[in-house]
Amino acid sequence: MAPHNDSSPAGNFTNGFNGMALQSSGLSSLTVEDLTAELGSSYDSSTLDTPVSHVKRPLVPGVYVPTMCFFDKETEDVDTVTIAHHAVRLARAGVTGLATQGSNGEAVHLTHTERQVVTATTRKALNEAGFSQMPIIVGCGAQSTREAVLLCRQAWQAGGDYALVLPPSYYAPLFAPSSQTILEFFNAVADASPIPIIIYNYPGAVNGMDMSSDIIVQLAQHPNIVGVKLTCGNTGKLNRVVAGTRKLSKEYDPLNPDFLVLAGSADFSIQALAAGGHGILAGLANIAPKACIKTIELWNQGKHTEAQGMQEVVSQGDWTAIQDGVIGVKAGLEEWAGYGGYCRSPLPRPTPEQSKNWKNGFKDLIMLEKSL
Amino acid sequence: MAPHNDSSPAGNFTNGFNGMALQSSGLSSLTVEDLTAELGSSYDSSTLDTPVSHVKRPLVPGVYVPTMCFFDKETEDVDTVTIAHHAVRLARAGVTGLATQGSNGEAVHLTHTERQVVTATTRKALNEAGFSQMPIIVGCGAQSTREAVLLCRQAWQAGGDYALVLPPSYYAPLFAPSSQTILEFFNAVADASPIPIIIYNYPGAVNGMDMSSDIIVQLAQHPNIVGVKLTCGNTGKLNRVVAGTRKLSKEYDPLNPDFLVLAGSADFSIQALAAGGHGILAGLANIAPKACIKTIELWNQGKHTEAQGMQEVVSQGDWTAIQDGVIGVKAGLEEWAGYGGYCRSPLPRPTPEQSKNWKNGFKDLIMLEKSL
Amino acid sequence: MAPHNDSSPAGNFTNGFNGMALQSSGLSSLTVEDLTAELGSSYDSSTLDTPVSHVKRPLVPGVYVPTMCFFDKETEDVDTVTIAHHAVRLARAGVTGLATQGSNGEAVHLTHTERQVVTATTRKALNEAGFSQMPIIVGCGAQSTREAVLLCRQAWQAGGDYALVLPPSYYAPLFAPSSQTILEFFNAVADASPIPIIIYNYPGAVNGMDMSSDIIVQLAQHPNIVGVKLTCGNTGKLNRVVAGTRKLSKEYDPLNPDFLVLAGSADFSIQALAAGGHGILAGLANIAPKACIKTIELWNQGKHTEAQGMQEVVSQGDWTAIQDGVIGVKAGLEEWAGYGGYCRSPLPRPTPEQSKNWKNGFKDLIMLEKSL
Amino acid sequence: MAPHNDSSPAGNFTNGFNGMALQSSGLSSLTVEDLTAELGSSYDSSTLDTPVSHVKRPLVPGVYVPTMCFFDKETEDVDTVTIAHHAVRLARAGVTGLATQGSNGEAVHLTHTERQVVTATTRKALNEAGFSQMPIIVGCGAQSTREAVLLCRQAWQAGGDYALVLPPSYYAPLFAPSSQTILEFFNAVADASPIPIIIYNYPGAVNGMDMSSDIIVQLAQHPNIVGVKLTCGNTGKLNRVVAGTRKLSKEYDPLNPDFLVLAGSADFSIQALAAGGHGILAGLANIAPKACIKTIELWNQGKHTEAQGMQEVVSQGDWTAIQDGVIGVKAGLEEWAGYGGYCRSPLPRPTPEQSKNWKNGFKDLIMLEKSL
Repeated sequence: MAPHNDSSPAGNFTNGFNGMALQSSGLSSLTVEDLTAELGSSYDSSTLDTPVSHVKRPLVPGVYVPTMCFFDKETEDVDTVTIAHHAVRLARAGVTGLATQGSNGEAVHLTHTERQVVTATTRKALNEAGFSQMPIIVGCGAQSTREAVLLCRQAWQAGGDYALVLPPSYYAPLFAPSSQTILEFFNAVADASPIPIIIYNYPGAVNGMDMSSDIIVQLAQHPNIVGVKLTCGNTGKLNRVVAGTRKLSKEYDPLNPDFLVLAGSADFSIQALAAGGHGILAGLANIAPKACIKTIELWNQGKHTEAQGMQEVVSQGDWTAIQDGVIGVKAGLEEWAGYGGYCRSPLPRPTPEQSKNWKNGFKDLIMLEKSL
Repeated sequence: MAPHNDSSPAGNFTNGFNGMALQSSGLSSLTVEDLTAELGSSYDSSTLDTPVSHVKRPLVPGVYVPTMCFFDKETEDVDTVTIAHHAVRLARAGVTGLATQGSNGEAVHLTHTERQVVTATTRKALNEAGFSQMPIIVGCGAQSTREAVLLCRQAWQAGGDYALVLPPSYYAPLFAPSSQTILEFFNAVADASPIPIIIYNYPGAVNGMDMSSDIIVQLAQHPNIVGVKLTCGNTGKLNRVVAGTRKLSKEYDPLNPDFLVLAGSADFSIQALAAGGHGILAGLANIAPKACIKTIELWNQGKHTEAQGMQEVVSQGDWTAIQDGVIGVKAGLEEWAGYGGYCRSPLPRPTPEQSKNWKNGFKDLIMLEKSL
Repeated sequence: MAPHNDSSPAGNFTNGFNGMALQSSGLSSLTVEDLTAELGSSYDSSTLDTPVSHVKRPLVPGVYVPTMCFFDKETEDVDTVTIAHHAVRLARAGVTGLATQGSNGEAVHLTHTERQVVTATTRKALNEAGFSQMPIIVGCGAQSTREAVLLCRQAWQAGGDYALVLPPSYYAPLFAPSSQTILEFFNAVADASPIPIIIYNYPGAVNGMDMSSDIIVQLAQHPNIVGVKLTCGNTGKLNRVVAGTRKLSKEYDPLNPDFLVLAGSADFSIQALAAGGHGILAGLANIAPKACIKTIELWNQGKHTEAQGMQEVVSQGDWTAIQDGVIGVKAGLEEWAGYGGYCRSPLPRPTPEQSKNWKNGFKDLIMLEKSL
Repeated sequence: MAPHNDSSPAGNFTNGFNGMALQSSGLSSLTVEDLTAELGSSYDSSTLDTPVSHVKRPLVPGVYVPTMCFFDKETEDVDTVTIAHHAVRLARAGVTGLATQGSNGEAVHLTHTERQVVTATTRKALNEAGFSQMPIIVGCGAQSTREAVLLCRQAWQAGGDYALVLPPSYYAPLFAPSSQTILEFFNAVADASPIPIIIYNYPGAVNGMDMSSDIIVQLAQHPNIVGVKLTCGNTGKLNRVVAGTRKLSKEYDPLNPDFLVLAGSADFSIQALAAGGHGILAGLANIAPKACIKTIELWNQGKHTEAQGMQEVVSQGDWTAIQDGVIGVKAGLEEWAGYGGYCRSPLPRPTPEQSKNWKNGFKDLIMLEKSL
C-alpha cells in the first residue's frame, strides 16, 4: 500500500478524470443539505462532514462483513437509522471491518449518491460509537474504467478506506485477450484511485468470468492493490494466491500481510485458513458475527477440533444464506434480530412460509451466536 | 400505447418515485449551464431546451438504429459533435428511428447525466436537420425497479420517445419464480414510465436470462408496453410473439401494429419478416443503413429473390459486427466513413491488423451501401 | 457426395479402425439370431439382412423427421413393433426422410447394438411398406474420433444412408484451439465413414459449443460432408452457411443442392426457407408431419400468406415440444395417436396433469394436421 | 455398505435389467479369447479370469488415483502394458486405491469392452504385484439408468470394487424437478448395482449440474451408496456433507467412515481435511503420488506447517494439471516418467513448446516427489 494513502489525494483533483468524476457524481453542486434532502428526515445532515479527515485504517486479518443495505418498507428509501444501528451492532460484536456496497449491500440497487450516503452513514456511526479505527471497504466495480475510478473517489469522499472492485464483464467477449484487458482495467483503476484496491473475484456476478491465480498474483504487484476476496470458493486458487503473493513481500508477516487474501463465504472459513488465507469477508457475518469470529479464533489458537465443530454449524447456517441470498439473510435478521426489512424491488418479499423456513435454517447458528 | 402519452406527465411528478428519481439524477438542482459545464465546450447549451415540448412520434415498422456513442480519443469524454453528425447521417439515409443507449451505445459506460446529454444531443440534431418527427428509443434497463423508472423519466426529460428495457439479472437466482418477478418488474416500470416501454430480450447481456414468448405476450397486454426487440435471434419465438400479440388487437394493421416486434440483428431481417416481424433494431445499420432498409423494402414489395440476394450480403457483413461488436463497428466506421473513434476503457483499441481485417469484412457490404 | 458412396465400402474393412470397430460393436461374433435374441420376440430376425444391398438414396430438400425411439412400458426394452409402425406412418404422411438416434430418438439411452436394431428395423419397415428409396439419417456423434467412425460404420451396416454427427465436447476446454480440433474431428470422421456426414450444430447438447458459419462452410468442402442441421436456431448463421456453401458448387441447383442446410426445429421453417435453407429436420414432425410439409410446400409455391398462417400454428404447437422435449412429444403421440409410451429412465413419466396440458398444447396443431 | 457386497451377485443375474445388460454388453457371447482378440497381442488372455473371485476391499481414507488410460501412439489401441506398469508404480508409491474410467481415464473415449479390459488389466497387475487388497473404483456414469447399471455390472465382472457415478445431464431440462430425477436415478442404480456406488459431483462434466449437499446427504442413506467425490471444489459443501452424513452413522469412525468424502483435486487436499474430508481422488496423483500422500500424512499427524508448505507445491503443480487436463498430465508423465503417450483423437497432441512449458510447470512438484 502506498505510504501517502492516508493523506488527502487533493492533488489528484486537478486531473482529467476527476473533473468529470466529481461533476458526474452530482456532488459538485450539491451541498450537505441537498444530500440530506434526498435521503429524508431519517438522515443526519452532519454525515458527510466526517470524511473530511482521512486517517489510515490498516487492513489486517480477521472477519469483515459485507453489510446489508436497509430500506424503508413503504418507500424503499435508504434507511440510514437501521444502517447505522446494524454497523454498530457488528462493530460491538468484534468484527475487524465492514464493507458497504457488496452484493449483500445491494450496490446494484443504489444510485451513486445513495452509495455515498450509505458509506458516510456507516463511517459516522462507527466513529460515534468509538470505532473510528475500523476500516470500511466500499464496493466500486463498474463497466468502464472511468466509472470505477469515479466510484473509488466517491467512496473516498464518503469515508471509505478501501475499494472492492469487480472486473467489468458486459463486453467480456470483446476483451482481447480477456486477461490482458482485465489487467489493464485493474491497474488503471489502482493508478487513479485515492484508496487501495481489493480485487473481487465473484464469477456468479460477472457472467462467469473467473480470474486466475496468475492474474491475481500479477495484479498484487501494484502498490495500490492490497488484497482479494475470493467468492469463487476455489481454495486451491486461494492457496496459489497466498503462495504467489507471499513471495512478493520482503518479509512476510501473517498478522499483517502486504496482500490480504479473504474467503468470500463463511462456509469455507477454516478451509481458507488451512490454505494460508487471512480471514473472511462474508455475508453470513451479518447474522452471526460472533460465530464467524470465534471459529477463526479457535482455529488460529490451534484448537482445531473445536473450530471444526463450530465451522459445521456455520457452514450449515450459511447454506440458507447461500441459497436465498440477500432475501434470506434479511429475513433471518428480521426474524432473529428484529430488523432487516426487504430488498428493493423487483426482488420479491419472502412469503410467511419462506420466512419460517429461513428462520429455522438459521436456528442452530443463532443458538450458537447467542451462546458466545 | 396510452392516448395521453404525448402529453407532459407532469402530474406524475408528485408521486413517491419521482421525488427520489429527479433528485438522484442530479438534475433537479442542475441548470442547463451546469450540464453544459460538465460536457465541455463541444456541448451546445441549448440542447436540453428541446425536450420541453413533447410531441408524439409513432412507432412504426421499419429500420431502427441503436446508435454508437462517440468519445474524444484523448479524454474519452462524450463527443457530442460526432454524435449529432452520425444521427443526422442515419436520418438522411432514411432510417425509421434511432435508439440511444443500447449495447452499441455503450450505455453501461455512461453516467446518468451523460446518457441524457447523448439523447438530448441526438434529439436536437434530428430536429435541426428537419427530422423532428423521427422517434428516439432510449435504453433504460436497470437492476432495480426504481432506477429503471428513473432512467425512463430522465429519457423523457432528454427528449426520448420510447424506453428499451432489459430485465434485471444480477439477483436472478433469487427471483421467485423468475417469470413472476420479471412480469412484476416490467409492469411496475410501465406503470410509472412517462414513455412507452419496448421489451429488450438479449440473453447475452443479462447472464443468459431468456424471456419466453409467453412472458412477452403477457406483458404486451400492458397499455404502456408497445414492442419488443429480440436479440436472441430466435425467430420461432418471434413468430409466436407476433401471433400472440396480434390477437390482443381489435383489428391488426401490419403497417401500424399495436405491438411492434423487431429483430435485434440485421442478419435475420427477412427471416423476421417472413415470421411476421415488423423490422429491425440492429447495430449493423450504423454502418450500412441503406442496405438494411433496401433489403426490407424489397421483401415487402414481394421481390423476394432480390431481397434474399441482398440479405446475404448484409448477413455476411454482419458477421464481422457480431464477432467484434462495438469495437468492430467503430473500426468499420473509422475506416469507411472517416469517423468513429474508440470505445471507452477498458475496451481495447483495435490493432492495425484488426482494423484492416474488419475493414475488409465490411467491404462487400459497403460496396452495396454505396451503390444505393 | 462422393460418387462411390453408394458402393459397399468393404474395401475399408481391412483398415485399422475397422478391425476395432467391428469387434467392439459386438457384432462381429453375433449372428442375426443373437441380435434377435437380444430384442425379444417382437424383433424379426430378417431385419439385419436388409442392409446387405446398399442403394444410393439422395438427400434432397424437404421435411426430415428425427424419429422417436419407443420402449416397452414395463421392461423399457426397445419396442421394434412401434418403431416400425411409426416409421411407416411418417412415410405415408409424405416426409422426405427419417433420422434415427437424434435427441428425439434417445440415442444417449441406447447401446450400440440397440442403435443398430432401431435403424435396421426402420429400414426394413420402410422397405416393406414400399419406401425403399427413402433415406435414413443416423445419429453418430461421439467423444472420440474412433467411436464416431465406429458408429458411422455400424449405421451403414444397419442400413443407414447418412450420419448426423455432433462435435465432441467433454474435453472441449482442451481443444486447441477449439475450431482446429473440431475441424480435424469432422474431417477425420468424414474420411473414414462409409456414409456421408451431416454436421449437427446443437449447442444445448454439447455444453454450449456453437459451431460458426466459417467452420461449417470450411467443412462443407469435404466431399463426404453433405449437409448441416442447425438446431441453434440462428437463421443469420443459416443464411451465411447457405451463401458460403453455394459458392462451393459448380452450379447450384436449389432442388438438389450439393450441401443441404436444414433447420433443426419446425418453428423456424419458413424463416429458414426465406434465408435460403432447404427444409427441416425437426422433432415436431413426429406428431404433425403433414402440417410441417404443407407449410413448406405453400411457401415454396409462393403462397406466403397461407404459409405464414400455417407456420404460426406449427410454431405454437412446437412451443410445447420445445419446452417438454421427448417427454412432451411422446405424451402428445400417446394422447393423439394412441401410442408413444415413455422415455427410458431416469426421464420422468408425465403426470396426468402434464399429459392433459401437453395434449392441449398440441390441440390446434393436431386439428390442422387432421384437416390435411 | 451392504454386508453381502463381497459375495457374488449371481442371484441378480436373473432380473430384467441383467438379461439386457449382459447381452448388450456384447460379453454374453464373448469368451475370454474373443476379448483377447479385440485387444491385440499386448493383451494377456488370463486377465478376465481374475474377477472370478470377489474379495471385499474396504474403502478407507487416503489418496485415490483416477488413473490415466494409455494408448498405442500409432493405432490408439489400448496399451495394456503401460496401464499395468502405471498401476503398479502408483501402488508401490503407497496410494490407497485406484480409479479407472474417470475423466483422467478418458472413459468417454472407450467402448464398454475396452473399459472392462482396462479395469481387468489393472486388477490383474495389482494382484500380481502383491496388491490384491487394493480397491479399484470404476467410472460408471451414463445417461440412462439401465446403462449405468450395465456399467456397474461390467465393472464388477472386470474386478471393480466400487462404481463412481456421474448424474445424467443430457436431458436435464426435462428432469422434474431436477433433484427428484437425480435422486431416483442414483437410488435405482444403487439398488441394482453389484458393487457400492460413489457419487461423482463434477459440474464441468455434466453441463453445469451441481448436486447440493442436501441431495448427497439424502442419497447417503442408501446402504449401497458409500461415498462422494467432490470435484466442484466447494469445501463449504464438503463440510456440510461430512456433517450431514456423520449423523447417519451409529458411531462415527474417522478412520473408517460409513460414507467417504473425497476432494476431487489435489489443490484442496488439506482444505478438505480441515473441513472433515477423508482424502482425495485426484488426477495429480498420477504424476506425484508421494507428494499427495505426504501432504495428507503430515496434516493428519498434526504437522500443519509442514503440510501447508507441501500443499503449496502441490497446488502450484496442480495448476498445470488443471489448465491442461489429461493432455498436460500425460505430457508431464512422458517428460518426467518416460511414458504417457497421447490422448485419443480428437484431443490434440502437445506441441514441443507446450510439452516444455508443462514439464516446467511440474518441475517443483517433481523435485519434491523425488525427494520423498
